[in-house]
Amino acid sequence: MDHPYVDQAPGGPIRSGIPEHGRIPKYYTVKAHVSLLIEELGEGGLLPTERELAVRHEVSRETVRQALRELLLEGRLRRRGRGTVVAGPKLEQPLSLASYTEGVRRQGRTPGRHLIGLERFPCPAALAAEVGIGRGEPVWHLERVLLADDERAGLESTYVSVARVPSLDTEFEPDSSFYAYLHDRLGVSFGDADERIETVLATPREALLIGTPPALPMLLLHRVSRDSAGAPLERVRTLYRGDRFSFTAHLGRRG
Amino acid sequence: MDHPYVDQAPGGPIRSGIPEHGRIPKYYTVKAHVSLLIEELGEGGLLPTERELAVRHEVSRETVRQALRELLLEGRLRRRGRGTVVAGPKLEQPLSLASYTEGVRRQGRTPGRHLIGLERFPCPAALAAEVGIGRGEPVWHLERVLLADDERAGLESTYVSVARVPSLDTEFEPDSSFYAYLHDRLGVSFGDADERIETVLATPREALLIGTPPALPMLLLHRVSRDSAGAPLERVRTLYRGDRFSFTAHLGRRG
Repeated sequence: MDHPYVDQAPGGPIRSGIPEHGRIPKYYTVKAHVSLLIEELGEGGLLPTERELAVRHEVSRETVRQALRELLLEGRLRRRGRGTVVAGPKLEQPLSLASYTEGVRRQGRTPGRHLIGLERFPCPAALAAEVGIGRGEPVWHLERVLLADDERAGLESTYVSVARVPSLDTEFEPDSSFYAYLHDRLGVSFGDADERIETVLATPREALLIGTPPALPMLLLHRVSRDSAGAPLERVRTLYRGDRFSFTAHLGRRG
Repeated sequence: MDHPYVDQAPGGPIRSGIPEHGRIPKYYTVKAHVSLLIEELGEGGLLPTERELAVRHEVSRETVRQALRELLLEGRLRRRGRGTVVAGPKLEQPLSLASYTEGVRRQGRTPGRHLIGLERFPCPAALAAEVGIGRGEPVWHLERVLLADDERAGLESTYVSVARVPSLDTEFEPDSSFYAYLHDRLGVSFGDADERIETVLATPREALLIGTPPALPMLLLHRVSRDSAGAPLERVRTLYRGDRFSFTAHLGRRG
């Protein structure tokens, strides 16, 4: 959520979006007005129809649609049935060794997972060092849709060596936490991990699985983690809906 | 950069983007082929023209344009003059108390900053606790465009109390590091910070200042930091080009 002062400070309305030079796109004027309306209505509030907004702002419905499209992509609005309502704040997922399950629970939401596929294949060279095996040795690929309160929130691919978790296909409940499984059944504890975050566009397949429009900006998290003895453990690639998630980190002193 | 195995593993081509169910958009087939071409050409390689690609794939130029637009938004291609070339990898900025300057230098790029504005105004309520002053007391807003090798990379707003840095407008070189200034001139050291990352669309004003297309997904970093004595120091809002930056973090054991 934007901090209101950013728009109100006399100094610098960095997010107000009105160019000091150059022309203001018409749709953006509508977007700015709808933004104020969003503040007034509050979470769950029902927006006027496209037609009403077009009449109110004396613009075409296509112009209104463009404004709403951006607000939907940014997660400030959501579709509900045939209407459009004000969305709640983005979920804040901590960047930590805590699992997805734990992060979502901490915010009072119910985490879940849908299995898309679990397959084993010979490990390609690029993955071998990350999961700690030789090229060609068997590796698991576990692919799951992430849920928060039954809503699809992301898509996760976990790669882990078959030698390390030989019974993944028979023992593991695919809708449960993989980290809990590793810890409780195999006694494996996480030591540390390297993460990288970027923004990408969902592919059509990903958009289909997560149920988002294809152009929706996503947050992509890459993770390579090691166990408490420092041995390579897993390579994870998680795609989170950019309109529903943000990530938080606490930074301590360097050194 | 995507790891090639993700596309090649027999198991799950999570990024290959070909839906298992549902139709494959025509532009996406073109995008997938151009992706392979990007791998072959390597950084700086010149792409065939839109017209050549349209002929080669037997599609309209508009379809080619849509494929290229996504690859440009994702930072895999860049415009150079009238041509389109393969982009280099995204800059990896560490999530740490290190400054932008330091992060960019570590990757062999030359950091820089262009002053957009420096203004003082009475502190709004929402900002007061974050910068450690009372509502209405004077606060600075320093707004700068971030540069990497003379290319515009982002836009940063720093809010800091005037009482803490009274001579910011006369002493500080706006194209230098604010953190170096705080440390070297005022003896202020950073203690810790809370950060939050999300993806947003640039506003027209931001797009104009950074020189990006308005629909480009950006990474927005919010930072609230405290000095080594734990006193509130600054509130920063930095917008990074999503096609040029990724963020890295090393996660240690929970504790």
